[in-house]
Amino acid sequence: MYEKKTFDQFQVGDKATFSKTITEADVVNFAGICGDFNPLHMDAEYAKNTIFKQRIAHGALVNSFISSVGAMFVGLGAVYISQFSKFLAPVHIGDTITATMEVTELISEKNRLKNRTYVTNQEGKIVIDGEAVVMIPR
Amino acid sequence: MYEKKTFDQFQVGDKATFSKTITEADVVNFAGICGDFNPLHMDAEYAKNTIFKQRIAHGALVNSFISSVGAMFVGLGAVYISQFSKFLAPVHIGDTITATMEVTELISEKNRLKNRTYVTNQEGKIVIDGEAVVMIPR
Amino acid sequence: MYEKKTFDQFQVGDKATFSKTITEADVVNFAGICGDFNPLHMDAEYAKNTIFKQRIAHGALVNSFISSVGAMFVGLGAVYISQFSKFLAPVHIGDTITATMEVTELISEKNRLKNRTYVTNQEGKIVIDGEAVVMIPR
Amino acid sequence: MYEKKTFDQFQVGDKATFSKTITEADVVNFAGICGDFNPLHMDAEYAKNTIFKQRIAHGALVNSFISSVGAMFVGLGAVYISQFSKFLAPVHIGDTITATMEVTELISEKNRLKNRTYVTNQEGKIVIDGEAVVMIPR
Repeated sequence: MYEKKTFDQFQVGDKATFSKTITEADVVNFAGICGDFNPLHMDAEYAKNTIFKQRIAHGALVNSFISSVGAMFVGLGAVYISQFSKFLAPVHIGDTITATMEVTELISEKNRLKNRTYVTNQEGKIVIDGEAVVMIPR
Repeated sequence: MYEKKTFDQFQVGDKATFSKTITEADVVNFAGICGDFNPLHMDAEYAKNTIFKQRIAHGALVNSFISSVGAMFVGLGAVYISQFSKFLAPVHIGDTITATMEVTELISEKNRLKNRTYVTNQEGKIVIDGEAVVMIPR
Repeated sequence: MYEKKTFDQFQVGDKATFSKTITEADVVNFAGICGDFNPLHMDAEYAKNTIFKQRIAHGALVNSFISSVGAMFVGLGAVYISQFSKFLAPVHIGDTITATMEVTELISEKNRLKNRTYVTNQEGKIVIDGEAVVMIPR
Repeated sequence: MYEKKTFDQFQVGDKATFSKTITEADVVNFAGICGDFNPLHMDAEYAKNTIFKQRIAHGALVNSFISSVGAMFVGLGAVYISQFSKFLAPVHIGDTITATMEVTELISEKNRLKNRTYVTNQEGKIVIDGEAVVMIPR
């Protein structure tokens, strides 16, 4: 499942994806871990009266799928240096999201990959867009 | 716990913190949500033979506590625009981390706050450092 | 709930059942434990385009209810020797399943019970059929 | 992560593995799904006075990792026909187990693979041994 990879195995344009339907259980369990009980995520009655009309998933929850695709994509021994994410659209319970990590730059002198990281929903809309830098062993 | 706040209530230097001990259950449950079963997080035998010597928490898990402190700090109606995080040091099972969000700039024309977001461990070491931009209703 | 039983208390034909509605949370949490994120279980969009038309529960999840009925049926001190299961039909989120364990043979010289183990859905259809062997203290 | 594979891609001897440390959280969460609250798994005081001296993981929990390795190994579109498992040794909380699926026979006229499925602990001891039959699309 998780393989050791080396810097030289990566090219600009290489990518991987991971998809999952975001369920109510995910939102509840995520809140239980991090303690973010914002009623926008946890209180269906409150959420009804917001511009979103319903509970939405935590941005950090959706963001976590980038970690998941990244772990498989860059492989064992890689070190996550940084993650930047812009939250562009809400994810609702029942949405199916796809996280993508795609190499955009090889920083050879530092053994680092710059990757575009983005998440789309089932309609192809980008809900998160950003960048991850990872260091890969030679 | 979660109050409605307005842009004018915030000053540069305002901050809030949230602390929690990171348990094995947190790591296991987080993997269960996002699907990141990297053995560095899930396999004690594998982790022994890495430079970390033991399982470490997912960076995205530690990052999620920024979401948690942010939700209380900026309040209801705020919109998360972006999050940037540099992963500076590992968090082990049993570490107690403190996430801090602190206003660094008021972008008045856009109703936005720029915040430094960082996470320290029980020894005061910074494990994540970064920046969050949020929009606050007037 | 869990009593100590002895081999002599069992007769061929003795049985017990356990029923539960399979929820989306069960499927999500089960994947989270074992790491089986097959999109047939986790991705509603993918599942739509399979012969099943929707997400189905993991066979191993449905199988686990045999463990549950078995624990109560054979009682404290019993040792599970083996389990054989044929997966005959899918279980969908929202289905209510009933697991049954029924003694089919007493293997007296080994203190073992052979049991038929099967799971039906709310329409009475058999979704799993098989056999469990357990050893019961005298 | 999960690829579509065809029957012709498999040879006798092909195999895959998946490893994870079994944590207290896994045992608690698994019981919460299937309802098997046998004190041997859930009650540390009770378990102290058994031959195992401590809580052990449910056999069906350990068995579920075969599902996990199988999902990746046989790929999308495969259908699980049957699973046979002999429970040979206990798994304790804190043990790191490795589930292996290995092709032992190609049943060409039925598009089926027979696989040995076994689980070892961190000392290499086999805790579950058995057989899975899966059907793979051509």
